[in-house]
Amino acid sequence: MLVHGKHTVETLLKYKSQIIKKLYLSKSQYNRLLIEIKGINYEVLDNEKISKICKSDKHQGLVADIDFKTKINIKHLEKKLCFSSDKTQRVLILDSIQDPRNLGACLRTALAFDFNTVIINIDGSAPINEHVFKSSVGAILNLNICYVTNLSNTIKSLKKIGFWVLGLDGRGEGSIFSEKFSSKTAVVLGSEGSGIRKLVKENCDHLIKIPISNKVESLNISVAAGIIMYELKKQHIN
Amino acid sequence: MLVHGKHTVETLLKYKSQIIKKLYLSKSQYNRLLIEIKGINYEVLDNEKISKICKSDKHQGLVADIDFKTKINIKHLEKKLCFSSDKTQRVLILDSIQDPRNLGACLRTALAFDFNTVIINIDGSAPINEHVFKSSVGAILNLNICYVTNLSNTIKSLKKIGFWVLGLDGRGEGSIFSEKFSSKTAVVLGSEGSGIRKLVKENCDHLIKIPISNKVESLNISVAAGIIMYELKKQHIN
Repeated sequence: MLVHGKHTVETLLKYKSQIIKKLYLSKSQYNRLLIEIKGINYEVLDNEKISKICKSDKHQGLVADIDFKTKINIKHLEKKLCFSSDKTQRVLILDSIQDPRNLGACLRTALAFDFNTVIINIDGSAPINEHVFKSSVGAILNLNICYVTNLSNTIKSLKKIGFWVLGLDGRGEGSIFSEKFSSKTAVVLGSEGSGIRKLVKENCDHLIKIPISNKVESLNISVAAGIIMYELKKQHIN
Repeated sequence: MLVHGKHTVETLLKYKSQIIKKLYLSKSQYNRLLIEIKGINYEVLDNEKISKICKSDKHQGLVADIDFKTKINIKHLEKKLCFSSDKTQRVLILDSIQDPRNLGACLRTALAFDFNTVIINIDGSAPINEHVFKSSVGAILNLNICYVTNLSNTIKSLKKIGFWVLGLDGRGEGSIFSEKFSSKTAVVLGSEGSGIRKLVKENCDHLIKIPISNKVESLNISVAAGIIMYELKKQHIN
């Protein structure tokens, strides 16, 4: 996978340089990053050639070809959650988020508010590609992301190991304004167009909404995700 | 201004049909919206021709040419705020938000949480165009949006009429987790790259931050905007 841009590539160099297979950089970036790229396989090119490689002219002189895998086995993940000694555990479940920018923003916020585990359904969701990577500002490097074929089964398993599974739904009975969250909570979010799918919704313990003005039909999904993860973080702190 | 897509155009037809100068629609949309388009100047075209008009193939058979103006005079707006009988008043101030999608999402959330007045600096901000319109899902139709040349002067004026002006800043002294908000609050947000500009920041009454994990440098600006507006709305309700 090719990723580009100053912020993205510098995040990689800082936190996950070992997954960089090859770095393409301009002469000026090379001069600037001499120390950071030590030990990395790199090639200095002019900007035009870099644009050709990454098929964009927004690379700011930095493109990295990375070896990125999200393949964490769900059984392994469940075990990890089950035997974790963390008092507070948060899981984000994304049901069919198709827009790469929204998916990336959700992942960035997840890491920001300590939702270190994210579960996504394979069919109907955007794959982790360079757009998701860029929107997440590299956050995906530090998350446990697990793609599964059946979200309902995953939710059932999470409930068995003590998670309270909360769905965010415009027609939910509960309100985020008054909700008290369990120390082990999984939050389910659906796509912007159609929300959480029926069967997935039925498997949630409780459905809550974010009350908004009737002049607006819904919030942007990454904004809604941000609000609920913020609220969980806040309740845990206070 | 040309706007397109099912959701956007249907919102227009529902709330602001008077600003539609002309509607271009496919035969199937025409059959579906017979009643809604009564009294509107329209033309039924095939999808290919509609794509040519709006320079996109994502129109879903619906394009509207609208007459949209955001020109509200700041003096008029200040007077309106000053003499308002509303107990709770909220103003959103956006300093140099350049990404149309982020701007649109901020406006959508503003309307959702009763921030009905939005002030934006002319130089350095994205203009209200079809991308902003689409991302706001038409919310801009129901907001008082005012573009000004000097945000610092506007902030001074707002303070004179009793507003507490709060800046959201990663290095802010205060924390959103413990902040109590005044009934008349204006929130200032800066661009994702560089935050609120220095002089604008100096004119704020108080700077607060949203505490996040040190693994993430910042939140997406529309997510951060969503969280602070949500928090103000929540405190007002409770």
